[in-house]
Amino acid sequence: MGAPYDTLYPETMLWATGGGHGWCVMCGSLIAGATIINTVCDKKTAFKLVDQLFSWYEQTPLPTDISNKYAHERRFLVDKYKSTKIFKQTVAKSQLCHVSVTRWCKASGYATGSHERSERCARVAADVAAFTAQLLNKHADGLVESAYAMSANAQGCRSCHAKGKPFDEGGWTRGKMDCGECHGPRGKEINVSDGHYMGFKE
Amino acid sequence: MGAPYDTLYPETMLWATGGGHGWCVMCGSLIAGATIINTVCDKKTAFKLVDQLFSWYEQTPLPTDISNKYAHERRFLVDKYKSTKIFKQTVAKSQLCHVSVTRWCKASGYATGSHERSERCARVAADVAAFTAQLLNKHADGLVESAYAMSANAQGCRSCHAKGKPFDEGGWTRGKMDCGECHGPRGKEINVSDGHYMGFKE
Repeated sequence: MGAPYDTLYPETMLWATGGGHGWCVMCGSLIAGATIINTVCDKKTAFKLVDQLFSWYEQTPLPTDISNKYAHERRFLVDKYKSTKIFKQTVAKSQLCHVSVTRWCKASGYATGSHERSERCARVAADVAAFTAQLLNKHADGLVESAYAMSANAQGCRSCHAKGKPFDEGGWTRGKMDCGECHGPRGKEINVSDGHYMGFKE
Repeated sequence: MGAPYDTLYPETMLWATGGGHGWCVMCGSLIAGATIINTVCDKKTAFKLVDQLFSWYEQTPLPTDISNKYAHERRFLVDKYKSTKIFKQTVAKSQLCHVSVTRWCKASGYATGSHERSERCARVAADVAAFTAQLLNKHADGLVESAYAMSANAQGCRSCHAKGKPFDEGGWTRGKMDCGECHGPRGKEINVSDGHYMGFKE
């Protein structure tokens, strides 16, 4: 294939571990997937495929059944497993490492420092790698992949709160992450003075 | 210098735009800074420098005075400016693009789709690049850079909520981001049933 494919320097992305050297900002497997997509696609295509990857990650019970099965049957290409148990699945509802890991730990009963949590994240990384490969293969076959859409929360909130909207109508923010995960459904769960606004204070 | 320095493929990182192709997950300039640090440092050093970079970003009024001044005097190495105004500075208190941008927009009065917001992020990117270069230069000179520490919130909360803590004592979560930015100071601002717990629901 030649450069840049055979000169990629994997160490450049070591910081993805722990969602950013342990800061737990963004799931490291998404950092890896987005990097690979952008390495092999033009910008416009990459934008579409990353949208699919991020939406799929946000909405899919992880680790997937196949990933659980592969680990249970020791079929991954590794010699050592931190656990071969079938794990409980959780939907992250977020691209944030912190949220994804916390949700799984609370549902599974395993601590973040446990071998099981490490193994869970390894399986999630495998799932993200597999889904990324599937996206790229479909694109290579000329198929348009648009199976996953932004969350209903984000679609609703972005009618006011998005890039391009007037400031006075809510255009002072932007993003595509599932708003409800931090802000609650328009203040019904989060009782703060100005309705659906929380956490972020001047 | 030879590979990998002269074969880096910048397109791999295009997804950093808009904090992850517009998803606003993580400030793209931090994605770039962490990538460069990991490209030129061993893992242990990179871990330390990324800690400094992420803490500095979280706690520093941005864009910096020098970045504002460079833009105002048209001294950056670009021909076109989206604005040459001196901008209001804000402390992001987060590594998230969404939070960093929103805080600045609300403080400055500029919408996220404005030329001024674009220019603000360009200046922040310049600031991150400059600080990253300073970190690397100090390291090359054998100086230990530890001027920035994790936020007081994170230091406090991590006494229970960190990787390695027992599940029942709060070890079901991890991370180094400023907890208070989303969770509030132990529930004093966020009135939810279980004290300092918010947003994240099963």
